[in-house]
Amino acid sequence: MRLTPVFSLTIFLLLITGPLGADDGYRLWLRYDEIADSPLRKSYAKALPRVFREGDSPQLCAAEEELLLGLSGLLGHGVESTAAAPAKGLILGVLGRSTSLDGLLSAEEQASLPDGGYALIGQGKQFYIAGKDDRGALYGAFAFLRYLQRGRPLDDLHLLDGPRVKNRLLNHWDNLDGTVERGYAGFSIWNWHQLPHYLDPRYTDYARANASIGINGAVVTNVNAKAIVFRRDYLQKAAALAEVFRPYGIRIYLTARFSAPIELGGLPTADPEDAAVKKWWQDKASEIYALIPDFGGFVVKANSEGQPGPREYGRTHAQGANLLADALAPHGGIVMWRAFVYSNEEPVDRAKQAYDEFVPLDGKFRDNVMVQVKNGPIDFQPREPVHPLFGSMPHTPLAMEFQITKEYLGQGTHLVGLGKMYEEVLQTDTYAEGPGTRVADIIDGSAYGDDRLTAMAGVANIGTARNWTGNLFGQADWYTFGRLAWNPTGKAEDYFREWSQMTFPNSPTVQETAQNLLAVSHEACVNYMTPLGLHHIMGPDHHYGPGPWIKDMPRADWTSVYYHKADAEGVGFDRTKTGSDALEQYTSRFAARYESPDSCPPAFLLWYHHLPWDHKLPSGNTLWAELCYSYHAGATKVGEMLKNWKSLSGRLDQERYESVRMHLEIQEKEAKWWRDACLAYFQSFSGMPVPAELEKPTHSLEYYEGLTFPYAPGIKAKW
Amino acid sequence: MRLTPVFSLTIFLLLITGPLGADDGYRLWLRYDEIADSPLRKSYAKALPRVFREGDSPQLCAAEEELLLGLSGLLGHGVESTAAAPAKGLILGVLGRSTSLDGLLSAEEQASLPDGGYALIGQGKQFYIAGKDDRGALYGAFAFLRYLQRGRPLDDLHLLDGPRVKNRLLNHWDNLDGTVERGYAGFSIWNWHQLPHYLDPRYTDYARANASIGINGAVVTNVNAKAIVFRRDYLQKAAALAEVFRPYGIRIYLTARFSAPIELGGLPTADPEDAAVKKWWQDKASEIYALIPDFGGFVVKANSEGQPGPREYGRTHAQGANLLADALAPHGGIVMWRAFVYSNEEPVDRAKQAYDEFVPLDGKFRDNVMVQVKNGPIDFQPREPVHPLFGSMPHTPLAMEFQITKEYLGQGTHLVGLGKMYEEVLQTDTYAEGPGTRVADIIDGSAYGDDRLTAMAGVANIGTARNWTGNLFGQADWYTFGRLAWNPTGKAEDYFREWSQMTFPNSPTVQETAQNLLAVSHEACVNYMTPLGLHHIMGPDHHYGPGPWIKDMPRADWTSVYYHKADAEGVGFDRTKTGSDALEQYTSRFAARYESPDSCPPAFLLWYHHLPWDHKLPSGNTLWAELCYSYHAGATKVGEMLKNWKSLSGRLDQERYESVRMHLEIQEKEAKWWRDACLAYFQSFSGMPVPAELEKPTHSLEYYEGLTFPYAPGIKAKW
Repeated sequence: MRLTPVFSLTIFLLLITGPLGADDGYRLWLRYDEIADSPLRKSYAKALPRVFREGDSPQLCAAEEELLLGLSGLLGHGVESTAAAPAKGLILGVLGRSTSLDGLLSAEEQASLPDGGYALIGQGKQFYIAGKDDRGALYGAFAFLRYLQRGRPLDDLHLLDGPRVKNRLLNHWDNLDGTVERGYAGFSIWNWHQLPHYLDPRYTDYARANASIGINGAVVTNVNAKAIVFRRDYLQKAAALAEVFRPYGIRIYLTARFSAPIELGGLPTADPEDAAVKKWWQDKASEIYALIPDFGGFVVKANSEGQPGPREYGRTHAQGANLLADALAPHGGIVMWRAFVYSNEEPVDRAKQAYDEFVPLDGKFRDNVMVQVKNGPIDFQPREPVHPLFGSMPHTPLAMEFQITKEYLGQGTHLVGLGKMYEEVLQTDTYAEGPGTRVADIIDGSAYGDDRLTAMAGVANIGTARNWTGNLFGQADWYTFGRLAWNPTGKAEDYFREWSQMTFPNSPTVQETAQNLLAVSHEACVNYMTPLGLHHIMGPDHHYGPGPWIKDMPRADWTSVYYHKADAEGVGFDRTKTGSDALEQYTSRFAARYESPDSCPPAFLLWYHHLPWDHKLPSGNTLWAELCYSYHAGATKVGEMLKNWKSLSGRLDQERYESVRMHLEIQEKEAKWWRDACLAYFQSFSGMPVPAELEKPTHSLEYYEGLTFPYAPGIKAKW
Repeated sequence: MRLTPVFSLTIFLLLITGPLGADDGYRLWLRYDEIADSPLRKSYAKALPRVFREGDSPQLCAAEEELLLGLSGLLGHGVESTAAAPAKGLILGVLGRSTSLDGLLSAEEQASLPDGGYALIGQGKQFYIAGKDDRGALYGAFAFLRYLQRGRPLDDLHLLDGPRVKNRLLNHWDNLDGTVERGYAGFSIWNWHQLPHYLDPRYTDYARANASIGINGAVVTNVNAKAIVFRRDYLQKAAALAEVFRPYGIRIYLTARFSAPIELGGLPTADPEDAAVKKWWQDKASEIYALIPDFGGFVVKANSEGQPGPREYGRTHAQGANLLADALAPHGGIVMWRAFVYSNEEPVDRAKQAYDEFVPLDGKFRDNVMVQVKNGPIDFQPREPVHPLFGSMPHTPLAMEFQITKEYLGQGTHLVGLGKMYEEVLQTDTYAEGPGTRVADIIDGSAYGDDRLTAMAGVANIGTARNWTGNLFGQADWYTFGRLAWNPTGKAEDYFREWSQMTFPNSPTVQETAQNLLAVSHEACVNYMTPLGLHHIMGPDHHYGPGPWIKDMPRADWTSVYYHKADAEGVGFDRTKTGSDALEQYTSRFAARYESPDSCPPAFLLWYHHLPWDHKLPSGNTLWAELCYSYHAGATKVGEMLKNWKSLSGRLDQERYESVRMHLEIQEKEAKWWRDACLAYFQSFSGMPVPAELEKPTHSLEYYEGLTFPYAPGIKAKW
């Protein structure tokens, strides 16, 4: 196999980062700097003098290449491969295919490993990375390196692990013109114009980073799709990317525009029941698989926000999805059909739409269709209750769609550790199949006990920013997403720790501070943006900054007032029986907790209830006062985060230190802006004073309302 | 002074470029790798044990910082600064202000140095970098490092140099949304959204690179301007950039939208003779200078391609320019008023428009106005004759506008050394003030012998690409532009050599090959795109690829057929007396050479003449055959370029080698595409056969005409 030419050990070890370099964060968590702890490094070096790979698959070769690169860096001297199993050293292979691994695991152990699983075993003077399959060996190699990066002991190494979810995907909302919808880390890393002939080394590094956390699929185009991506020249470009990704176990997926048979095929219709339409998709699928044998499949946004779909022909989402699924099935491809739909009619409660539309279709989808559901029923708000579809479609495999880009969570600027949000959602008990049916159990299929398709998708936060994610801590969101996609029952803090240990120097102060930032920042963000269950009160279009006053938009459910319903009496969206009754979409046991404002957790109070400003909360505060304290707590927490980070000056490289510092300074300003603008706005209804001990808004409400940001990033391309 | 925190010697020397790094070209020509030639390195190290800076200006501090960085890298060990002039070592200061430099130069020598000039002097065991002023010291420091990077001997060092042109500017056609009009190296490096609080280290490295070649101004916004850049929050963002640039001697400029008093100021008019309009610009200038004391001034595109301007109010370009000039004058700012105008009426010959409009205004501009003229009369074509305005406005300082981005020259993909094109233009004799009045002499003012404003501007080829320019050799275009702006009479090959020596390993094969690529590639590009004086026959809008068939556009002078006028009889634009008589805009001595097809150099034949297909050329070939041979020669040359580059495999780092190789592979394909598409098209008129020994076009004309590229880069932002 031929790996892209980035890695040249002899060269990379000789080069020093020049004057223009310092540490720009490009290496992500795959840093492989020489281990500073000399006895530890020496013990590793003694144990791992060489590497033996048994097998020739592209994935095994990539795994070996990574091991040589990683070990040479971590140990501070070149580590080489050998042609036969060494008496002492590291042995890499695939169970059942590499004879060196025979008898390494018990039959029971071996059977316990899922596809993509691996074992790391120390036996005498030999260490084994044993993959259940080629991908498993690759994941094992990265896990082994992670083990060393974190300074873990090699004694009695006996570790088995495997993914609980089959498809672990990044969704790139990248447009073919290089812009990224809701992208806040620069522009698209895909240079479609120069593909297939120019292969940016970044494509390989992207694949390595993803492989290291178990991501095995990349949807490289925006869900607001263009048909042209199915034109042959674009398929050839996609095939070139697929070739770069393949050794790293990553399949490429494309977003399918439902009307492509019309726009590209020249057909008069895209009706899923039309024979010519079926044939067009079948032929297109064959063409794709001839170019990309391991093509993953299609992700589809249909009949939503202006995208075409089966509803235009009086067909259901199931008929639409099955059309594509039938075309892909002979080749092993799947369809990820998004449940994020809303019709042209304005609903009483948008939170109810997807459920109403999809639950009746349960059981009507082909086996190779998944319905991809956002974590909450609105749209990636700082905090949402879990989507009512989770647990409500037992006969349909549901994929989780999280966002990693932070559309409503401070975008590319704010440090907001999303792991806590993911965990909150995944750990939520839906009671769907009885108590203990967490969202995680639905996603990984264990709630149903069958061998269904499983998937978790994350809307990528990756762009041309040199450190990939703009805000350096955005790397942690990418990392944590991948680790939770591998194991949705995992704990966010474990992954924060891993990321931090691989990313920052091994100093207790640095480690504690970085991990704490990730742990506390999501709650802080919720507080300074949308505390107590508020949601969707941001600036219009670009979604940058506060905009609770937004009311004149083409659709009511694009405004803020639709969601907060503030008036002189009170604030909040009544989703109980006296209101939209969105709670009836959940199991009664789930709903029971939220039906009454007395038992409803404060975090979701205004999501489910419209309450008077002077409503008394368990804290003893009025609703208004609690709102004030919450907003202030959020902003104050960001001040603490900044202060804590500043205490690290000199404890890590200056470039990354300064980068985070500057972003936190902006976040502190913007947290106060959110706080002050929202409180000034809500005060215009409550008429109540901000508690005396709290800072008053710096400016008038008119000032905040008058701010405009025509060039805020991440908006849709219009060309 | 505080420098941005990128440079930390202790850190940068410890770090090695990690697995994801290799050599990505980010360091440009400021590489400072340890000198491989050990005796040479030791002799430098012995001579330069320390650095002493006498003076405290930001520019002097930046110069010292660069010297320490550069010397430490080149010599392979930390070099430190001392608090007093060392008996042995390097002394940095400003003439007349640093006592260490007293008596270093003769009075005559000192007087000969222009502003920004410097002397590098070796005297006994001391080496001096003596600036005429602070900028001069900075330029001297970079020149000294360049001297070492190129391995030049320190013996008898006595070198005086200074800029022949006062204002040496990059023009960024960067939009506030991050897109770049005609940008082919990714997107804008200016993150307006996060300014002024987030300062990307790249801003500093940009400034360093520019200072190293003498660039002293940066126009950071697109000539197709938005008024909002004058809103206070945007001015604060610009001020933050200006602060980063200041230590590197670079002033910031903004593009001024002529209608800003209406759009931003709420006035009913932007009439330059309106008192309120005058006051608005005066107030705006005062506001700008309060934030940016060394603000450079405005660049203006008015009454051209839809941009507003004075003509809407029945005023002249001079009245428009003087309006802004009067506002800037009290603060020392200048106006660069672009001559690239064309009216809404379609002209008989667009090549004549600017001359007709501007020559009558000669002498009517304020002293702080320059008219900025593109090198040729059409628009940055692969080859154009010099613009007739050069030499035609003796009472008005003219600025040269070159492009560095390669809009019509292969964009971000093709390797085309623009230096040869710059040189061809600058060395052209206009005969304006008698024989020997080269364009260079007009640009540097020497043709007029007065102390007028002088300027050269280059439309930047810089983007978010990690190597800044997409195609690695685009760095050479940036470099060569800067060096020629410093000295327009310089020779391109000298600067190719400098760049190559600083950029690539010191191997004769590598050096010869790289310099040769730069030397031959422009002629090759002209040949495979627009030989024999053809021009403006590219694809519409995006200007990517061939499009000689383009005929249906909103304006005739946006089509290709307007320019080549091919028919059954022949091809070419008659610009002699029998045609548009564009030649009468030049001096008669200049025109004489081009009037007759017999004396007209083949390079401009079809620029000035419409000739029959069977017209006999001095070569003995018919025009048609010559066209065929020229197109083939261009494509064949690219094949040779690729072959030569491939011979360097293993002689430089693999990442840069592969990057150039992949781009050359694309260039080879695209050169053939240009050749075949254009010959297929012109053959449909000539009806003559392609000479037997030449390859025939691979596809039919219809095939080439049918190709579409909706997402080719660099097109205008539409949002």
